[in-house]
Amino acid sequence: MRIGELARRTGVPVPTIKYYTREGLLPPGKRTCPNQVRYAESHARRLKLIRAMLEVGGMSVSAVRDVLAQVDSPSRTVHGMLGVAQAAVSRTAAERGTEEERERAEQDAAALARRHGWAVKPENPGWAALVQLIVAYRDLDRDDLLVLLDEYAAAAGRLAEAELAIVARVPTVDGKVEAVVLGTVLGDAAMSALRRVAQESVSSRLAGSAGHPE
Amino acid sequence: MRIGELARRTGVPVPTIKYYTREGLLPPGKRTCPNQVRYAESHARRLKLIRAMLEVGGMSVSAVRDVLAQVDSPSRTVHGMLGVAQAAVSRTAAERGTEEERERAEQDAAALARRHGWAVKPENPGWAALVQLIVAYRDLDRDDLLVLLDEYAAAAGRLAEAELAIVARVPTVDGKVEAVVLGTVLGDAAMSALRRVAQESVSSRLAGSAGHPE
Repeated sequence: MRIGELARRTGVPVPTIKYYTREGLLPPGKRTCPNQVRYAESHARRLKLIRAMLEVGGMSVSAVRDVLAQVDSPSRTVHGMLGVAQAAVSRTAAERGTEEERERAEQDAAALARRHGWAVKPENPGWAALVQLIVAYRDLDRDDLLVLLDEYAAAAGRLAEAELAIVARVPTVDGKVEAVVLGTVLGDAAMSALRRVAQESVSSRLAGSAGHPE
Repeated sequence: MRIGELARRTGVPVPTIKYYTREGLLPPGKRTCPNQVRYAESHARRLKLIRAMLEVGGMSVSAVRDVLAQVDSPSRTVHGMLGVAQAAVSRTAAERGTEEERERAEQDAAALARRHGWAVKPENPGWAALVQLIVAYRDLDRDDLLVLLDEYAAAAGRLAEAELAIVARVPTVDGKVEAVVLGTVLGDAAMSALRRVAQESVSSRLAGSAGHPE
């Protein structure tokens, strides 16, 4: 198809398609004669994936480029893809607190992982974020909120099993790799969205049943 | 205490404290004589809260300012605080898809809310994000991933109950308001972090047991 048709099919304007091509997110079309470039079905699919990562996942163009480079790599594996996708959607956690506070928080994080039967590499981007969070809760004397980490961990464990079971059922490697990317990028957005909806609903019920403004 | 002592106690450098004061995040100290400004315990606590929102929650300075204005408002309520905190940590979801696709996604989202017994206002920032997500999954023909929304929703519901039960146990309104802010801002960060750790752990087990690189 020509670029106009690609734009119509995907809802991505022509200048944006050209921009993604210049930025290396979208492979160029095939030049069939001096003035004509042809795009394939795979371009339409790739454009939809790019939009989902940018608009729904809130990723930067360079983070999308990193993920797509791995998606297209011949040596990709499902487990390797997960690491790349996780790194792309994670902010770097700043080191917080004194060395002593960080050490104590690391021990708490390790105990939490043991309680949930997890084997984690310290370079997992979630690990540094978790340690930083524990330091922050303690810094604010909110040990009461630390208790919630076990609830979050139990939920995260159940969700990881459900997510990876779906990936396992996808028949092709291409499909598995895409499912891992979408599960990581869109899964975070889905969880945040549903937490807001659930919190409002529960809070509104509690405010109503309290019989006074809460 | 003087500004140097405040910096030492909180780990926030003096120029940063001055910057937060100029930006209206931190109330100014009390001028005791022409060259001396005194800070109270409440300044130290406020600084720690600001750092947690900026560094751990990844919020912008203006988003932190919005939240703190509500924290300091005499008419604040726990339920109102939740709405302000949620809005501050949410990106605006772009409208995606055709009108027909959005309508179908809204119906799916409403059915999901009904299945989980939720009463939601359409202006909840999570609602628009959820509709946008459903459009994105469909656009990519990944109806298999839509199934996960019920798992996410069940987890989000359980977590909201646990979070608000903790808020209810906090004795003072000041403490409740702070717990809502931290629960919203840091809760998202905690859930993302723990999801990465859990996913790596489950994926690594599956890759190992498959007996071939996965």
